[in-house]
Amino acid sequence: MSDTLRVAMIGAGFMGAAHSQSWRVAPRFFDLPVKPTMQVLAGRDLAAVEQAAEKWGWAEASADWREVIARDDIDLVDIVTPGDTHAEIAIAALEAGKHVLCEKPLSNTVAEAEAMAEAANAAAERGVISMVGLTYRRVPAVTFARDLVAAGRIGVVRQVRAAYRQDWLRDETGPMTWRLEKHRAGSGALGDIGAHAIDLAEFITGLRLERVSGILETIVTERPLLGERVGLSGTATDRLGTVTVDDVALVTGRFASQDGFAPIGTFEATRFATGRKNALTIEVSGSRGALAFDLERLNELEVYSAADPDLEQGFRRVLVTEPGHPYLAPWWPPGHGLGYEHGFSHQVVELVTAIAAGTAPSPSFADGLHLQRVLDAVERSSEHEAVWTPVG
Amino acid sequence: MSDTLRVAMIGAGFMGAAHSQSWRVAPRFFDLPVKPTMQVLAGRDLAAVEQAAEKWGWAEASADWREVIARDDIDLVDIVTPGDTHAEIAIAALEAGKHVLCEKPLSNTVAEAEAMAEAANAAAERGVISMVGLTYRRVPAVTFARDLVAAGRIGVVRQVRAAYRQDWLRDETGPMTWRLEKHRAGSGALGDIGAHAIDLAEFITGLRLERVSGILETIVTERPLLGERVGLSGTATDRLGTVTVDDVALVTGRFASQDGFAPIGTFEATRFATGRKNALTIEVSGSRGALAFDLERLNELEVYSAADPDLEQGFRRVLVTEPGHPYLAPWWPPGHGLGYEHGFSHQVVELVTAIAAGTAPSPSFADGLHLQRVLDAVERSSEHEAVWTPVG
Amino acid sequence: MSDTLRVAMIGAGFMGAAHSQSWRVAPRFFDLPVKPTMQVLAGRDLAAVEQAAEKWGWAEASADWREVIARDDIDLVDIVTPGDTHAEIAIAALEAGKHVLCEKPLSNTVAEAEAMAEAANAAAERGVISMVGLTYRRVPAVTFARDLVAAGRIGVVRQVRAAYRQDWLRDETGPMTWRLEKHRAGSGALGDIGAHAIDLAEFITGLRLERVSGILETIVTERPLLGERVGLSGTATDRLGTVTVDDVALVTGRFASQDGFAPIGTFEATRFATGRKNALTIEVSGSRGALAFDLERLNELEVYSAADPDLEQGFRRVLVTEPGHPYLAPWWPPGHGLGYEHGFSHQVVELVTAIAAGTAPSPSFADGLHLQRVLDAVERSSEHEAVWTPVG
Amino acid sequence: MSDTLRVAMIGAGFMGAAHSQSWRVAPRFFDLPVKPTMQVLAGRDLAAVEQAAEKWGWAEASADWREVIARDDIDLVDIVTPGDTHAEIAIAALEAGKHVLCEKPLSNTVAEAEAMAEAANAAAERGVISMVGLTYRRVPAVTFARDLVAAGRIGVVRQVRAAYRQDWLRDETGPMTWRLEKHRAGSGALGDIGAHAIDLAEFITGLRLERVSGILETIVTERPLLGERVGLSGTATDRLGTVTVDDVALVTGRFASQDGFAPIGTFEATRFATGRKNALTIEVSGSRGALAFDLERLNELEVYSAADPDLEQGFRRVLVTEPGHPYLAPWWPPGHGLGYEHGFSHQVVELVTAIAAGTAPSPSFADGLHLQRVLDAVERSSEHEAVWTPVG
Repeated sequence: MSDTLRVAMIGAGFMGAAHSQSWRVAPRFFDLPVKPTMQVLAGRDLAAVEQAAEKWGWAEASADWREVIARDDIDLVDIVTPGDTHAEIAIAALEAGKHVLCEKPLSNTVAEAEAMAEAANAAAERGVISMVGLTYRRVPAVTFARDLVAAGRIGVVRQVRAAYRQDWLRDETGPMTWRLEKHRAGSGALGDIGAHAIDLAEFITGLRLERVSGILETIVTERPLLGERVGLSGTATDRLGTVTVDDVALVTGRFASQDGFAPIGTFEATRFATGRKNALTIEVSGSRGALAFDLERLNELEVYSAADPDLEQGFRRVLVTEPGHPYLAPWWPPGHGLGYEHGFSHQVVELVTAIAAGTAPSPSFADGLHLQRVLDAVERSSEHEAVWTPVG
Repeated sequence: MSDTLRVAMIGAGFMGAAHSQSWRVAPRFFDLPVKPTMQVLAGRDLAAVEQAAEKWGWAEASADWREVIARDDIDLVDIVTPGDTHAEIAIAALEAGKHVLCEKPLSNTVAEAEAMAEAANAAAERGVISMVGLTYRRVPAVTFARDLVAAGRIGVVRQVRAAYRQDWLRDETGPMTWRLEKHRAGSGALGDIGAHAIDLAEFITGLRLERVSGILETIVTERPLLGERVGLSGTATDRLGTVTVDDVALVTGRFASQDGFAPIGTFEATRFATGRKNALTIEVSGSRGALAFDLERLNELEVYSAADPDLEQGFRRVLVTEPGHPYLAPWWPPGHGLGYEHGFSHQVVELVTAIAAGTAPSPSFADGLHLQRVLDAVERSSEHEAVWTPVG
Repeated sequence: MSDTLRVAMIGAGFMGAAHSQSWRVAPRFFDLPVKPTMQVLAGRDLAAVEQAAEKWGWAEASADWREVIARDDIDLVDIVTPGDTHAEIAIAALEAGKHVLCEKPLSNTVAEAEAMAEAANAAAERGVISMVGLTYRRVPAVTFARDLVAAGRIGVVRQVRAAYRQDWLRDETGPMTWRLEKHRAGSGALGDIGAHAIDLAEFITGLRLERVSGILETIVTERPLLGERVGLSGTATDRLGTVTVDDVALVTGRFASQDGFAPIGTFEATRFATGRKNALTIEVSGSRGALAFDLERLNELEVYSAADPDLEQGFRRVLVTEPGHPYLAPWWPPGHGLGYEHGFSHQVVELVTAIAAGTAPSPSFADGLHLQRVLDAVERSSEHEAVWTPVG
Repeated sequence: MSDTLRVAMIGAGFMGAAHSQSWRVAPRFFDLPVKPTMQVLAGRDLAAVEQAAEKWGWAEASADWREVIARDDIDLVDIVTPGDTHAEIAIAALEAGKHVLCEKPLSNTVAEAEAMAEAANAAAERGVISMVGLTYRRVPAVTFARDLVAAGRIGVVRQVRAAYRQDWLRDETGPMTWRLEKHRAGSGALGDIGAHAIDLAEFITGLRLERVSGILETIVTERPLLGERVGLSGTATDRLGTVTVDDVALVTGRFASQDGFAPIGTFEATRFATGRKNALTIEVSGSRGALAFDLERLNELEVYSAADPDLEQGFRRVLVTEPGHPYLAPWWPPGHGLGYEHGFSHQVVELVTAIAAGTAPSPSFADGLHLQRVLDAVERSSEHEAVWTPVG
């Protein structure tokens, strides 16, 4: 096996900056079994791709992702394009024998996700590895929460309460963006951020949702159309456009039962939680303890243990920054926090380690498919008066 | 009009201690238009009632509430018995021309609540006043939240997120209590604590729920039967009893629409939120601001204003202990917090002031009836696969 | 021994309301060995005293404290007058054989405090009991902190960090009050609030300060004189008065050594901590754990234990509201918090229990004297360039 | 002027990793006027340096810093060696016409710092630029705090309360390290972490300390000598060594007066604050508002404004992650936090921008000298019974 891993990244938007940072930084802190090299960046607009490649440190730029996938000197394809293109690129790459990292959502439809999972399975038999990008799993406090649950530190999981709350749509005079158009964004708050809340709940508890009841809602249905572009947004015009995605999703779910009991969960995704900027929160209540996490304070995990002396029980604010915590050893001394982007480096560690070992990294395309099926069940429940609806 | 208000209290349990404290303390801090006197305490077991009357400072004890209601020297009847007795006592008292304060829940059934509301209406025409006890409305931070919403400080209400979370059923080896038996408690987590979460949402926003989707759940269905009584609980035996009430309720609701938009809310009641002792929390998200409250920190209100300078916005931790805050003026200097019981004194202030003025205090029996109807709709939705169900 | 304790209270200001509440309420919740009766309230202005007695529930009013002390039907004298009158009243009461509760500060000078401690010692030999009012010791979380330290739960105490921070002098246009005039108030921030920070540190750790280095500061030295009185303050005039007390005190202290090591502490008292309303905070760092308390959240204690699993250590937010916590059993269910005034009831419990048992309650006048000596040492250090200065 | 800046870094320890990351990452996110290249890493042990250079991405390795400084193809020297070597290297580099970034502390003695400041002044006249590394100034929330004070948002600064608290010496059985030996570390808690608390106070307020009173303390004076090395520490032997540096420093300071008033501050540095891992905290109290910061939550700034409506005032928790906040624009969306290392990138931005513009970056060597003088004054005060001691 080669000691380098030649990476091509398809897509040059916001997620590209984060993924580039992870390929650049991970090898500088972690002892990786193979060394990733940032070979080529591909996108639609060559001039823009060339500029991004220069900025982010990719050796080459390309406007033709098919050509890139066909190259012999590429080992891994990292897909950060919009969701509606994932299936085509990922399946082509897998068939070309390239390992694939595909940013979430796996796809915009269940059908595409099924095709991708099938392709991933077929590729796996040829030693080709695939992974879906759900990097919040790689925030050390989140991984640590999963470890604590798995070790039985909170007993049997009974209830989960997860939410992803933002407020960037609060102002009803804020203009339209592509994220609010169904045909471009694929989904709204549910798919964009609700998916993270659901995935975190499943990841931390090790349980899978089996049934859901939910509603999708569009709070502000018309917004000024965008005129001149400014940064990620732009100036508003006096014409109105129609918001065609949900901006709030409220879900109740039931996990697969364990020993006869099926834990329950609530999930919320909203872009109207005034004052909450990036509040991906989760609380897991177990028979012997509880855990609480908030992405706005990502270096902390709150831990409650019913094994503490009776009168001294309370949620502990644990700074997840000790060398013994997941992924922390190569970074900084205790209390010197990490940021949002570090999860991407940890994802690279997981992926590269799996490739070198020839094992299947997690989360798999099958995991990504399951997540799409949950979202789909929520949509169907919402269309049928919130009635309980099975997943898949 | 007399300058005293002669009170009889029916019921000598836990709530009796809180109500007694309010009748005792309120006149010592507030300038009330009439002075309440603690005339007689009535209950079933005369010896116990006499002991409680002595302890709590009631002038007389009685084992016959009907006799008490018939007395000429009683102006007001304060009902703190179990919910299944409320209707009979309250209607009798109202018909006897006594003002009535009835602890929540107004009753255990919608039918009884309807009869009580009707009796209250009829009594009102004769100048007899009634009020249901929902004292969390009288926590200063809650009243202040209501005032801020009413003053438009957070703009249009869009979303509400309310929960009442406790953990006293966490340990599955904990014994049965009457609160877990439907025929005695009337309802479980939904009626006992979920009712507070729902009422606070309606009180603070000034909106009423019109439709709900919800589930009721019993997480631990069998528990050891109670042997010898110890304090509020007791020792466990090795025989098992069946829990016949819900211990978790999860609800999604839609309020009456305003200007074409119907705000949405989520509500949770649970006795299995490990580590949460009395977490009645509510967050109200509006178009121009937001409010957040937690009963475990009852002297605080978090206030977010989108009118603050762009880069300086954040949830303010407001200590609701200034003389200008609701109910605070007669108490202590700023920052010297109040406790749980003070809400009961503030309830006395509201009630006594209304009686002296001849106006209708809030919340009325009609409000209590509405609340019962919401709970009833949740039960019906839960029985029908969580389908959206109209209130009333 | 009689089964009642007939109380006379001298003083009718703000503290009188708090003490009255404690005499009124304590017997309604705690099973006291003797029953206090609110016999007589004494003060200077008879009309005002009569009004306060009526309001607060004292049976009689008097304008002559000497006469009150001389009465045979008084068992205990509760002194809540300004500090400069404490010595005269307390010594007279003790000599008249009355038990004495004297609100802090014990006196305005060390010499007076010495005379009072001497009188208390002499009275004790005749079975007459005395206590100084430092009610923050009776906040359950504070007493619990003391218990944890005494039980060795945080190991050897090494460092203490205590502060009492308020901001009511923030606005330099705020008018003069008697609290800012040395000849009336006796002392400024140091004596008024710094004393509490120091006392809490000594109470919780069980250690006594031996040496201090400190400064006293007056941040705003001139303020508008008060015109017409409004509430506790009043309107400002355009004439200026001079502030003659400190409004900030900063102190470093060294406790008596234990096993060769003398723990160190920092103490701050300020009325200019913008945004802090009543932040009496203390953190105690020990070799095996730590505790942190904030009076603005008086129902909570933060507890850190180095005995927790290595990766799960963190400050626990303990709600000190369980029946097993100090003073909590007769109050409300877990999570239903207490307020500022409850400490006064707990003080009554301690005092009345000691009187019935014939034992010496804590804190004694000797403790009050020690506290005055610490404050005096700080003043002397401040006058001598902050040089280390022995206590007493 | 060249469009690249060829960097040599001297030193290959912990700080080298952080500085390497900043040279690597800053150009990938910020549009820098010149592009830094990571030319050569120098250190004492060639094998170790080569390994580090390979790991961190430096083009070359060298065991001779003098040779490196003499090279024509080096534009800037970044010094991250122990403090006792700073003066020699920095002065040599400046004299060789290299720009210099010198990690804090500027030096271990005032005399050396004076020589360095002098060399920096002389070099500045030749267009050679120097900067001392105090990266906590470049945490966005800290820079934003400075901006708010400068804009008058909190009025006149009156009081500062700063501390840097860690607990890694808590366990008295923990072994000796070089940081506890004066001849190697130069200073203890005061110089290592107290310096940051003092610098942050001066940076945020724009004020300079003029006088201090302080004590230095060594809480645990003997520790097991280190046997075999393990990671940053190692195994303990049964022989004891002597700790020769302070592990706690407590300081009171007075700033230069403004309009006749000299603000006061307290400063604490401790390695025994059990449970505090990296708590660099600062609170600045002004006449119209206040600010509070905690490095353990570095993406947040608490802001209090007395201009808020009277009843709605409180500390706002501001997430300093908006594009308009200092340094934030090129990073992630709101609420996606940064980590410890990002301050180093922001330092690179400041330095490189100044070099390109030919202006003097901040903090200068003169600032570093001032900081050493403050620390020196604290040491002298501590040696003289904590007496007030002028700075410099």
